[in-house]
This record gives sequence, C-alpha cells and structure tokens, in this order.
Amino acid sequence: MSPSTNDAAEVVEQARREEDVTRQVLDSFAGADSKRFRELMESLVRHAHAFVRETRLTEDEWNAGIEFLTRSGHITDDKRQEFILLSDVLGVSMLTIAVNNPPAGTATEATVFGPFFVAGSPHVELGGDIAAVASGQPCWVSGTVRGTDGRPIPGARLEVWEADEDGFYDVQYDDNRIGGRAHLFSDDDGGYRFWAVTPTPYPIPADGPVGDLLTAGGRGPMRAPHLHFLVTAPGYRRLVSHIFVRGGDFQESDAVFGVKESLLVDFIEHPPGQPAPDGSRPDRSWSSASFDIILAEETKDA
Amino acid sequence: MSPSTNDAAEVVEQARREEDVTRQVLDSFAGADSKRFRELMESLVRHAHAFVRETRLTEDEWNAGIEFLTRSGHITDDKRQEFILLSDVLGVSMLTIAVNNPPAGTATEATVFGPFFVAGSPHVELGGDIAAVASGQPCWVSGTVRGTDGRPIPGARLEVWEADEDGFYDVQYDDNRIGGRAHLFSDDDGGYRFWAVTPTPYPIPADGPVGDLLTAGGRGPMRAPHLHFLVTAPGYRRLVSHIFVRGGDFQESDAVFGVKESLLVDFIEHPPGQPAPDGSRPDRSWSSASFDIILAEETKDA
Repeated sequence: MSPSTNDAAEVVEQARREEDVTRQVLDSFAGADSKRFRELMESLVRHAHAFVRETRLTEDEWNAGIEFLTRSGHITDDKRQEFILLSDVLGVSMLTIAVNNPPAGTATEATVFGPFFVAGSPHVELGGDIAAVASGQPCWVSGTVRGTDGRPIPGARLEVWEADEDGFYDVQYDDNRIGGRAHLFSDDDGGYRFWAVTPTPYPIPADGPVGDLLTAGGRGPMRAPHLHFLVTAPGYRRLVSHIFVRGGDFQESDAVFGVKESLLVDFIEHPPGQPAPDGSRPDRSWSSASFDIILAEETKDA
Repeated sequence: MSPSTNDAAEVVEQARREEDVTRQVLDSFAGADSKRFRELMESLVRHAHAFVRETRLTEDEWNAGIEFLTRSGHITDDKRQEFILLSDVLGVSMLTIAVNNPPAGTATEATVFGPFFVAGSPHVELGGDIAAVASGQPCWVSGTVRGTDGRPIPGARLEVWEADEDGFYDVQYDDNRIGGRAHLFSDDDGGYRFWAVTPTPYPIPADGPVGDLLTAGGRGPMRAPHLHFLVTAPGYRRLVSHIFVRGGDFQESDAVFGVKESLLVDFIEHPPGQPAPDGSRPDRSWSSASFDIILAEETKDA
C-alpha cells in the first residue's frame, strides 16, 4: 500500500504534484505534426494517468507491469503474438472491432481477427477441401454472400481458417505444412461451399505471460469452437468474423469475448454414408453448416 | 476514420454492443483470487476501453500499437529497457513515483528512477571518486542526510549514478567498465562527500520505437543534467531522486518530466588550482554542489 499523507496541506500538495505531472505530459504533445497523433497521445496519457491515480499503483506493481510487457515482447516472434493475445483477453480487440464495424441493417456482425491469420493462403475451388492436412470430422460449409439489399455478390473473396481437431492452427505446427486455411470466391449467384473440419474448442496459447494473467484472473484460456472468415468484395465493407457452433462449449466464457448470438450456427451431424451435398458419401460421420454472409455497403465517409 | 452509423436505432445498437463488450470483460475477472488483482484489472480494462471508445481507434491504429509494443519488446534486453523508457516519456513513471512518495514535511522530493540503475555498484569511501572511468569535469558533491526532524542520519546508504560528459552511463559502454556509479555511507554526523563529474545533458536512447514516438510528438529526447541518488536508512522511507544543475538546459522539456524546483542545486564553478574541500588542488576547472538529503520517516501503514 502507498504511504498516507499526514495533514490537509500535504493532501493538497499531493494533488497538486499529481496534477502537475499530467498537465506537463499533456502539454508536451502540443508540437505534434499530426492532430490525430496528438489526440491519441492525449487520450492515452489521460487514461494511463487516471489508472495510476485511481489504483494508487505501487512501485512493485509498476515493476510487475514492466516485467509483464518485457516477457510478452520476448515470447513474441513471427509465429507467436503475445500482444495481440493480450489485447484479445482484455477485450480491446473486440471493442476495436465493434467501434469500426457499426451495425448496418442486416449486415453480418464482425468479431475478433485473432493472431492466426496468414496472408497468401492456398486457393481452393468451390466445393473443395480447405482442411488439407488438418485432421478432424469433415464439415460441409455453404451459404450465399449478399448485400444488405439481399442481392447476391458474385466473386466475393472468402478467406477461411480454423484449428484442427487437436486445437492447433497450421502455423502452430513444427513443420511448414498448410491446412485448415484457404481462400475461395463466391459463384455467379453469390454461393460458396467447401469442406472443412467441424470446429472444436481450443485454448489460446497459455504458456506465456497472458496465460499467467488469465490464471491470476480466475479465467480459462478456452475459445468457443468457431471457423474464421475474412470476406472482401469491391464496394463492400471488409468483414472479419467467425461462425460459432451453436451449443458448443465455452460460449459464456470465450477467452477473447468473440461470441455473438447472431454468429451461432447449427452444425448438423450426419451418419457415415449419408450422401453429402456434393454427391460424395463420406465413410465417417460428418457435419454441415449453412450461413449466409451479409456485407455492408462501403460508406463514403469511411 | 471509422464508418458512421445510419439511423437512431443503429446508434443505440452500437452503444449497446460497445457497452456489452466492456461489461463482459469486467465480469470475467470476478473469479480472481486476489482482490487487488481484480481491482487493477478492472481499472485497466475500464480505461483501456474508454481510450478505444473516445478516440474511435481505427484498426490500422490498433495494428500500429501492436507493432509498437512488438518492436519495444524486441529491442529490450539486459541493457536496454524500452518499456521503462515508454513509461518515462508518458509521465507514468513520474506519476507512480508521486503517488508512492507523498509529501512528508521537509522530506526531499522523489523523482524518476530511470533505466540505468544497476545493483551491486562498487563501494567508495567518503571523499572518494565515484567517476572512475567516466570522463568529465570533476565535481565535489557534499551534504548531510537528515530526518524531517533535522537530526542527522549516520550510516545511510547512498547509491549514486550518472552519465559521463558524452552522455553515456557505464551500462551503455561496449565493454564492462564501471564508472559514474558507486555507493557510500554517511558518517556519524550524517555527512557525505564524494568526487563525481559535473552532470551534462544527454538524450535518452532514441533509436527505437520510443524515439519515434518522441519525434511524432514534436518532442526531444534530452534530459536536463542531473545526478541520481537512491538513499536508504533503517526506519526511513527509501528515497529515489536526482539533483539537477540549476540553470542547466532542458529543464522545461526534460524528456521524462523529472525536474522539480526543489531539486535544483547550484553547481559552483572553480578555476584550476583552487583548493578543493578535501585539500586537493585540481589542475583543471572543477565544480561543487551542496545538497542536504531529508528522508521521511517510514509510515506504519506503508
């Protein structure tokens, strides 16, 4: 605990000293070239200082914070991004997504991007298999990409990625195999369809400082089962979202606060041998999920 | 700029979505074992979310923030601490010091610790030279360590450290030479005295992300010339402070907001050959500075 002050004059002097520091720092950004940069720094400083003042942060706690950031930096490399995980588990990622993707009629809600997207995924034809080396129960995913006016959007680019049944994305494999990751394009009627694997719950990487934070917070690292989408089409707002398995585990305690009621989808179970929509007869059980993707029109002030 | 919403219902829905994220994250720490940890996380989340909401942070800006933290982590090693520099240039360090070192009568004001302290400094006898291999104009520093009741404190441990005339601390040297860094103990009358070098202005390390932040903010990296103190004695509050050269450069724009009026000290110039207080006659010009260090009594609630 921080030492207490002894009398009224010292209380006044203490408040003066604290306010003086904040004022000096706010003033220091007066010469920034960019008005927006100054605005961001001023808000950051006001909130960082309010955090220290309100919590009466101790020097040991400050040191623990520096140590936390240092460990996060050192565990981060081209495959592991602890700062995105930190932003995710504090809901900062989800809130940023919410701020930048306001409701637009019936448009599909956005959710967190996560740290596992990789540019340059393989192209897969409609009806093809995005799972490749990723193991799991086969899952047929299909739907139509439309505008909020209901009109289909042909040629929309869908990037899809997901973890395998063991909970790993391909970038977490020790080798460089690619699986559970591809892009494809909607057909002339806006339709899309592909084989994937049925999403299963998995933990975010919890062997680093963010895992320690979750443990101290009495929280778990698990994510509700989901499949990632990134959908783009000329004239439409870029959509980053997931579909979640309705009734799946961890929907009330998703580690990154990504679950939205509107993104819950029925994944229907099918026995081995039942014909699939593409005419195949999988020799094991499989699932199917149908989800229409509604894109918001690009706004002119964006 | 973030997209705008189109009608009143969407404005309401937007507010609901944003509030919903914050509420979920605050609730997620309900199971923390430590009440204090929960308090810290809740305040951190409230302020981090308010920053995103107020600034309407864009996804590109969020990405720039992640990138900034990643670079800071990667440049940090056992000699370079970019996160402390970041805390310093945002005034978070100085505010934490202020919160934890409230006024106590005549006690010497605290200021920032900085990233250059190293435990295990050499011991120097009273009247000895702490500069060692650190170059610069010789400077005689002396004074008395007292309590706020005016009584001298014998045996107080003083750690002192400073940059050389080129602006480098010894930990910034390429080899492992030690200089401008030592500890000594006050005598039976609380007195202390040592040779050092006259402090000169220097830049904080500005070749990393924090340097870029200063540049974007229209700020400089320079610190007002100073000598660091860390003073401890049983029964007294640990004091981390500096003395600053009165009239020195950069006092209005100290990069880390460390300057306090009460810490400005006259550094008196002396010509070559003028006898020094220890009886020596330096063959070059030298300076002297006198500063009494007043320690606050340790508070029982601390």
